[in-house]
Amino acid sequence: MSPGIRTLSEHRCFGGTQGFHEHDAREIGLPMRFSVFLPPQARQGPVPALMYLAGLTCNEETFMVKAGAQRLAAELGLALIASDTSPRGAHVAGESDNWDFGVGAGFYLDATQAPWATHWRMESWIVHELLPLLGGHFPIDIHRLGIFGHSMGGHGALTLALRHPGRFASLSAFAPICAPTECPWGEKAFGGYLGPDREQWLAHDASALMQSQTAAPYPAGILVDQGLADKFLADQLHPHRLEAACRAVGQPLTLRRHEGYDHGYYFVQSFVADHLAHHARTLRA
Amino acid sequence: MSPGIRTLSEHRCFGGTQGFHEHDAREIGLPMRFSVFLPPQARQGPVPALMYLAGLTCNEETFMVKAGAQRLAAELGLALIASDTSPRGAHVAGESDNWDFGVGAGFYLDATQAPWATHWRMESWIVHELLPLLGGHFPIDIHRLGIFGHSMGGHGALTLALRHPGRFASLSAFAPICAPTECPWGEKAFGGYLGPDREQWLAHDASALMQSQTAAPYPAGILVDQGLADKFLADQLHPHRLEAACRAVGQPLTLRRHEGYDHGYYFVQSFVADHLAHHARTLRA
Repeated sequence: MSPGIRTLSEHRCFGGTQGFHEHDAREIGLPMRFSVFLPPQARQGPVPALMYLAGLTCNEETFMVKAGAQRLAAELGLALIASDTSPRGAHVAGESDNWDFGVGAGFYLDATQAPWATHWRMESWIVHELLPLLGGHFPIDIHRLGIFGHSMGGHGALTLALRHPGRFASLSAFAPICAPTECPWGEKAFGGYLGPDREQWLAHDASALMQSQTAAPYPAGILVDQGLADKFLADQLHPHRLEAACRAVGQPLTLRRHEGYDHGYYFVQSFVADHLAHHARTLRA
Repeated sequence: MSPGIRTLSEHRCFGGTQGFHEHDAREIGLPMRFSVFLPPQARQGPVPALMYLAGLTCNEETFMVKAGAQRLAAELGLALIASDTSPRGAHVAGESDNWDFGVGAGFYLDATQAPWATHWRMESWIVHELLPLLGGHFPIDIHRLGIFGHSMGGHGALTLALRHPGRFASLSAFAPICAPTECPWGEKAFGGYLGPDREQWLAHDASALMQSQTAAPYPAGILVDQGLADKFLADQLHPHRLEAACRAVGQPLTLRRHEGYDHGYYFVQSFVADHLAHHARTLRA
């Protein structure tokens, strides 16, 4: 393993390698954990990769343990990357008082408000530090990256993909928070991390970002799956906002609403193969 | 839900239903938890089922969360059943002092020694109470049952299948404890649950049980997968003992030794599809 990355464990999986790692994150000022699944094809040379962003309370293990994605990633020759969802060990007062703010709830943005601004810099860490680091040290082709995520991580995938044009070639989400400026989770997080000026929030709202595009940013289409028995659907997720914004700018969106499915990983694992195939169509083209 | 079974949660998964349930177990004298995945085919009528037994420290959730088995079970029309690994809440002195004895470590037998004999009756619970209960209340055909498991649960699958001829039609295991009378885990568990007479232990040792057969009990074959990077392989698992016993009695055994794989669920998920297909060949014949 290259200097700077400490490997915590590695496990053979579907002929590839599931690894859990840590590095001293410059952007965060603390050690940060992440996981990488390398498919067997990575032994022959760099492979395209999917960055996965997890939801509230999750960490770098959640997707790798619960989503059942490695099987198809090994078939398609895709690497999978997952990160932790916030800084850990910052010891900011109150950081663990809420399950939807602070630890486990970084919302994939750079906080501007004290005391969060020092360490809560998830966007810069992932985009400017982690992904380049991985490209240098694993057989991953960072010019062929897709991004996806679940719930808060679906918000993260949509917003990072829209805020960093050209960085990601393909995009999808499971039950994403589509309009965080208009839901309780988003209002709490953005108020705490970004302060009271709601104008500033719009730069991190997927539907507002989409609405402001002048051309479809992902012409090959965006895939979103949403369960209709998801208890957060009515108050927190607002997929119709994203749908309207995509329609307004001509962005192709496949938004599938699934009868009976809830918000958890039994839902995610049911459709993860479709997401991998969606990304592979672009990344392996 | 039928009286006697309390459903704790249900989740749509691959078009079927992943449920977590509890009942007041007569054999155990305490509430016991279990999980059932019903494939979509169960809406049309009873389906064959696989009973999965988990390893040390695990519970009724482990396999359903980590193994990625529901995808193929939904394709093949197989129900999946998993149980907890020991009584919980018995408040036996010292029951949680060890990770490999007591809570989370029931070893799928009926204890004969005080204070364990009162509640630690996993074999009778599963075979005589849980499976008949499930057959009466879910669309599961208990005349078409397979059994499999991992580590301690692999020991459980092999021994229950050999101790209850005709109950299970098909059998497989991941990294099973194949000769518990000859390894530290088994000596500790059997000494505690069954007492010092090692003769009594042999009735719960898969290799000894196999050796005592007069004809191949599973003529369609037994499938066992074992990782060669499994840190428990040398001291605890002894697959060569099972291999020798199968050879001696003419029992067909496919024992696959996999370079690089360890003892965990990244190993299990890599080969679980082969196990489901193995059982389906017999159960759907």
